[in-house]
Amino acid sequence: MTSLADDTGPAGTGPAAQGPRRALVVGTGLIGGSVALALRARGWHVTGDDADPERARAAVAAGVLDLVGDDPEAELAVVATPAGAVAEVANRLLADPGRRGDLVVTDVAGVKGPVVAAVPHPRFIGGHPMAGSEQVGLDGADEDLFTGATWVLTPTATTDPDAFARLQTVVTSVGADVVALAPADHDRLVAVVSHVPHLVAATLMNAAAKGAEEHAALLRLAAGGFRDMTRVAAGHPGIWPDICADNAGAIVAALDQVLADLGAMRQRVAAGDRVGLLDDLQRASTARRSLPARVPRPDRLAELRVPVPDREGVLAEITTLAGDLGVNIYDIEIAHSAEGPRGVLLLVVDGDQAAKLRDAVADRGYRCTVQVLA
Amino acid sequence: MTSLADDTGPAGTGPAAQGPRRALVVGTGLIGGSVALALRARGWHVTGDDADPERARAAVAAGVLDLVGDDPEAELAVVATPAGAVAEVANRLLADPGRRGDLVVTDVAGVKGPVVAAVPHPRFIGGHPMAGSEQVGLDGADEDLFTGATWVLTPTATTDPDAFARLQTVVTSVGADVVALAPADHDRLVAVVSHVPHLVAATLMNAAAKGAEEHAALLRLAAGGFRDMTRVAAGHPGIWPDICADNAGAIVAALDQVLADLGAMRQRVAAGDRVGLLDDLQRASTARRSLPARVPRPDRLAELRVPVPDREGVLAEITTLAGDLGVNIYDIEIAHSAEGPRGVLLLVVDGDQAAKLRDAVADRGYRCTVQVLA
Repeated sequence: MTSLADDTGPAGTGPAAQGPRRALVVGTGLIGGSVALALRARGWHVTGDDADPERARAAVAAGVLDLVGDDPEAELAVVATPAGAVAEVANRLLADPGRRGDLVVTDVAGVKGPVVAAVPHPRFIGGHPMAGSEQVGLDGADEDLFTGATWVLTPTATTDPDAFARLQTVVTSVGADVVALAPADHDRLVAVVSHVPHLVAATLMNAAAKGAEEHAALLRLAAGGFRDMTRVAAGHPGIWPDICADNAGAIVAALDQVLADLGAMRQRVAAGDRVGLLDDLQRASTARRSLPARVPRPDRLAELRVPVPDREGVLAEITTLAGDLGVNIYDIEIAHSAEGPRGVLLLVVDGDQAAKLRDAVADRGYRCTVQVLA
Repeated sequence: MTSLADDTGPAGTGPAAQGPRRALVVGTGLIGGSVALALRARGWHVTGDDADPERARAAVAAGVLDLVGDDPEAELAVVATPAGAVAEVANRLLADPGRRGDLVVTDVAGVKGPVVAAVPHPRFIGGHPMAGSEQVGLDGADEDLFTGATWVLTPTATTDPDAFARLQTVVTSVGADVVALAPADHDRLVAVVSHVPHLVAATLMNAAAKGAEEHAALLRLAAGGFRDMTRVAAGHPGIWPDICADNAGAIVAALDQVLADLGAMRQRVAAGDRVGLLDDLQRASTARRSLPARVPRPDRLAELRVPVPDREGVLAEITTLAGDLGVNIYDIEIAHSAEGPRGVLLLVVDGDQAAKLRDAVADRGYRCTVQVLA
C-alpha cells in the first residue's frame, strides 16, 4: 500500500498531459450509467462493460460510455454490478498485474460489510451513493443524479490514504457529499433509513392491494401521501433478497424496533391515549420538518491539519470519526513528509463543525489545528 | 326532504339571474381555503368564517374569500372546521329557519361515520376530498388542489337525492372525481390507505430521529425514499388524536394487519427466505406500478338511466353500489316524474365500466339502460 510517508505523489490525479483521466465502469445500470455520465461530463474517458453485452452496447449508443470493454489504463474502476458479483470483479481487477499500480477500485452496493470483508485490498474502498433507489436501469441514468446526494465511503484500517483521497475528490467532483463510515456502522444506519422503510413500503402496498381485492374503491382513495409512502416499493425487487441476506442482522434489529414502536402506537389508538398520540405525532412532525431535502453546502469551510504517524488505520480512524459526528468531508489531502515516517492529513469540513471535529480528534491524542478558509 | 317524485326543480342550481351562486365556507384552513378559491375561480360568491377571526380576515386579504361572516342566502355550506366542530356547525345551519330551504351542507372531515351519524339531516352529505394532507393552513390553499383528486361523498338512506346531485355537480366542477361510499366503508378504507400509513410514517421518522441521537450521520443517509416515506409525518399533528378516536376500530384492525404482515416479513429476513422475500417485493412492485398518479378521465362516458321508486335510500344504494365497484360518478341527475311516485336516476360513468355497474344495478332488481355518450 501507499503509506502516509511515501513522498511519491499520487499518479494520475492531476490533469494528465497525455489525455483525459480514464475510468472503468463495470455494470451499466442506473448507478453505473449515472457515474459514467457524470464522469464524462467532467472530461473523463469512460470504458464500461456489463454482464449483458447488449446493455453495454446500448450504453455506448446512448452516449453513456465512450467504449465497451476493458481499459487497463484506467486509474479508477467503479464496480456497479449486483452486490453478489462485486467481490469477484474487484479482486480480479486488483490482482491483475497488467493494470496501473495505483488503480483505485470502489463499488456501489447497498450493504458494505460483506463486500469490504471480501475485498481486503488497500486500494479497494467501499462506496454507497444514497441516490436513485426507485429507478431502474440505464434509462434512468442521469449525470446529475449525485448532485447534493450523500455518498458514503467505508475506509478500513488497511485503506491506502492516497487512494481514499483520490476517490474522495472524484466523488466530490460529481456533486456528492462524502461521509466516511465504518462498514458496520453504514450497514446499521441504512437498515434504519433505507432497508426497513423499503420493507415497510412493500408491506403497506401489499396490504392495500389485498384490500382492493375486497373493495374496488380502495386504491381510488390513495392520495399523495400513500403514493409517496409506497413509491420506493415500485423499485427493482431483484436486489432485495441479496440486501436482506447481506444485512440480515441489522435489518431484523431495526424491524424489531419498528414493530415494537408500532405496537405501542396501536395500543395508544386502542386505549384512546390522545396525549400519547399527540406526543408521538408532534415529535415526528418536528423531526421531519428539520430533515432537509439536501444538506446545504456550508457558508464557510475550514481546514483541519492533523499531523499523523505512518500507521495503518489512521486515515479510517479520523475520517470515520468525522462521519460519526455527522461531519461531511469536502476535501481531503495527504501531505507526505520526505523526512520521516509522518505525514499531515488535511481535511476540509463545514466551518461550523470544525471545532467539534477538532476536539474529537484531539481526544484521540492527535494534535490538530483549524484554519477557516476564505 | 325533497323526494324523487317532487316536480319542483331544485332551486338555485342554474345560473341565477340575480347574481352569482353563493357559498358559505366555515373554517378557512388549507381545505376550506382551497374550496373557497376553487369556487371563486368558477364565479361563486364565497363568504367565510373561522374560529380564529384573524385567519378569516387574512383569507379576505389573500383573495380567498369575498367576505368574512355569514351568508343566509348561500345555497351551499362547506364545513371545513376541525372534525370535532363539524356536527354543531352543520346542525345549527340546517336548523336555522332564516336560510334557504334547499341549503346543502357538507364537510371535509377525514372520518365520516361519527359526523354523518351526528347530523341526521337529508341535506347534510358527508364529504372527504382526498388531497392536500401534508400541507397546513391558508398559505397552502390552492384553487387547483382538487384537480384530478378523488372526493368521497357518503350518502345515507335518508339523503335528499337532489341535494346529492347538486353537491356532486359542484364537486365535479372543481375538478374532483366523486366516489360514493357508505360512511363505514369510507372509514375502513381510509384506515388502510391514509390513517395507518400516517402512523407508520411517524413511527419510522421517530425511530430514525432516535437513531440520529446515537449516530449523527444517520439522517445524512436518508435519501429520497426515506424522505418520501416520512413526508406525511410533517403534517399537522393536532388533527390526529381526533382521527384516531373517531376511527379507532378500523385503524386498530388495519394496524393489526400491518403488524402481522411486517412480522412475517421479519421472519423471512431472519430465516433467509429469499423466495418469500422476492415474492413479497415483486407483488408490491407490481401493485405500486399499477397505481396511477391520477385516475385518468375515461375516453368515453356512458349514461345509465335507472327508473327508481320514490323510496328513501335508493340514491344511496345505487351511488354507493357504484363506489363499491370502483366506479366514479361524473354526473348525476334526478329526473322527477310529474305523474306519480317515481323518478329516473341518471348516472354518467366511465363507458368501460357502465356494463359492470348496469349488471350490478340489475341484480338489485332495478331496470337499467345504458347509452354511450358521444
